[in-house]
Amino acid sequence: MSRITYVNGQYVPSRDAMVHVEDRGYQFADGVYEVCEVFHGALIDEPRHLERLARSLAELQIDAPLGQGALAIVLREIIARNKVANGYIYIQATRGVAPRDHAFPPKCVRPSLVVTARTVDPEKGEMTARKGVTVATMPDLRWKRVDIKTISLIANVLARQEAKERGAYEAWLIDSDGMVVEGAASNAWIIDRSGTIITRHIDHFVLRGITRTTLIDIIAAEGLKLEERRFSLDEAFSAQEAFITGATTLIMPVVGIDGRKIGAGAPGPLAQRLRAIFHDTAVRTL
Amino acid sequence: MSRITYVNGQYVPSRDAMVHVEDRGYQFADGVYEVCEVFHGALIDEPRHLERLARSLAELQIDAPLGQGALAIVLREIIARNKVANGYIYIQATRGVAPRDHAFPPKCVRPSLVVTARTVDPEKGEMTARKGVTVATMPDLRWKRVDIKTISLIANVLARQEAKERGAYEAWLIDSDGMVVEGAASNAWIIDRSGTIITRHIDHFVLRGITRTTLIDIIAAEGLKLEERRFSLDEAFSAQEAFITGATTLIMPVVGIDGRKIGAGAPGPLAQRLRAIFHDTAVRTL
Repeated sequence: MSRITYVNGQYVPSRDAMVHVEDRGYQFADGVYEVCEVFHGALIDEPRHLERLARSLAELQIDAPLGQGALAIVLREIIARNKVANGYIYIQATRGVAPRDHAFPPKCVRPSLVVTARTVDPEKGEMTARKGVTVATMPDLRWKRVDIKTISLIANVLARQEAKERGAYEAWLIDSDGMVVEGAASNAWIIDRSGTIITRHIDHFVLRGITRTTLIDIIAAEGLKLEERRFSLDEAFSAQEAFITGATTLIMPVVGIDGRKIGAGAPGPLAQRLRAIFHDTAVRTL
Repeated sequence: MSRITYVNGQYVPSRDAMVHVEDRGYQFADGVYEVCEVFHGALIDEPRHLERLARSLAELQIDAPLGQGALAIVLREIIARNKVANGYIYIQATRGVAPRDHAFPPKCVRPSLVVTARTVDPEKGEMTARKGVTVATMPDLRWKRVDIKTISLIANVLARQEAKERGAYEAWLIDSDGMVVEGAASNAWIIDRSGTIITRHIDHFVLRGITRTTLIDIIAAEGLKLEERRFSLDEAFSAQEAFITGATTLIMPVVGIDGRKIGAGAPGPLAQRLRAIFHDTAVRTL
């Protein structure tokens, strides 16, 4: 079966999914994206993903390429045409095609929209989670508005590549005060010796992860203690557990940082339990 | 005459110049670019532009999509096929097309290359230079490796747009110490009351402008005094002259910053003279 991609109003074989070289997404990274999990045929936390997409577009003053209803139909078509039961959809919207000039083009330029989908075996993620992952720390070189989920991702690319070369699954980005900001493609969490769950508070320097938000709901429902604040790398080294969250990684236990064991050096019981119950709470839409 | 664009080995009508949606330039801003002036049919400072392109690619560990000789031929073909006597060529190279994953794809993935050209009436720039331009200052939100000329330009886009909305031609980006870093698409210069020309020194936080480099040669040849160092916004306000440099703006007098007149509020004599002699020194290749 050949894969199908949605590009600016058309469903095309993925090998023919093309955009113009003067799409501002290609020349200026002038666009935003979302990755939304597909689990047992349902979209996970679709309302929150679409709400964040709308916020990212608004922050960049890009008009929504489609209304929410039409976009919801496109997402379902792409899931159906690609027969995705488990995996994810990828949505990218840019400011559209215009002669190269940094400033915004005239309002008549229509934004671009691309939607793709991919099947991923959920057992693969479960196997990774049973072993846990390691992270490598490095300075945070990103721009100062990473709360906007833009495609301007070169710093994230370089961080993930460095982590991979250092044998780690993810990078943890450290600010100039030695505090952990987040992962290159995930939010960062620790659980201290008293059982308090800690993740960085939300501002312009951290992505508003959807899995992060839903997990905060779960933590509240479970009556667990949460602190949203900066935490240092030293706190992370002495934590009882650590984990990362993201739409495709879900809740993934971290067992080592820069080659040092976290807790017992194995996935922590609380992180494992939160992962196990995540899909019971996350909103599923079909 | 329809314009012609080079895309990955082919010369195509510009309206058909397409790249794949999974080109890493589109999804990750994982690529670099150059803009090189065409003046009276010649490329201006081509060796320095190609040297910087090679450096940007090396910093990102992207293989050169073409050898220097082959690339030089493509540039000339694009200039000829588009009959550009005056204007510029635009070169963009990315890490190529691969299934979406932050880390680098396997080495077998071939980098992408796009070359476009555009005719610009040089008299238009001269008219602007006779009046001078104004700049608007704002915080520098860019990432911490802007010495690499990547297409990860969303911060530059937002800065140029804000400048435009504030009635200015260019943005001057200010660091957290109140020092002028550079423009969103140009280097920033001032001339103090003693006639010393000042521009920020080169490190990871400033682009290594080619026009900047060539102008430094001219300043030396003219026996003028140069200081490469940080300068404050207050120094800029009290400067005798100010100007910006870039491959298409050349040396452009700045007559106002944030609504305050610089010097006499008219293009300064030294900036005008440096602009007038720039093309006599810059290397022309045909």
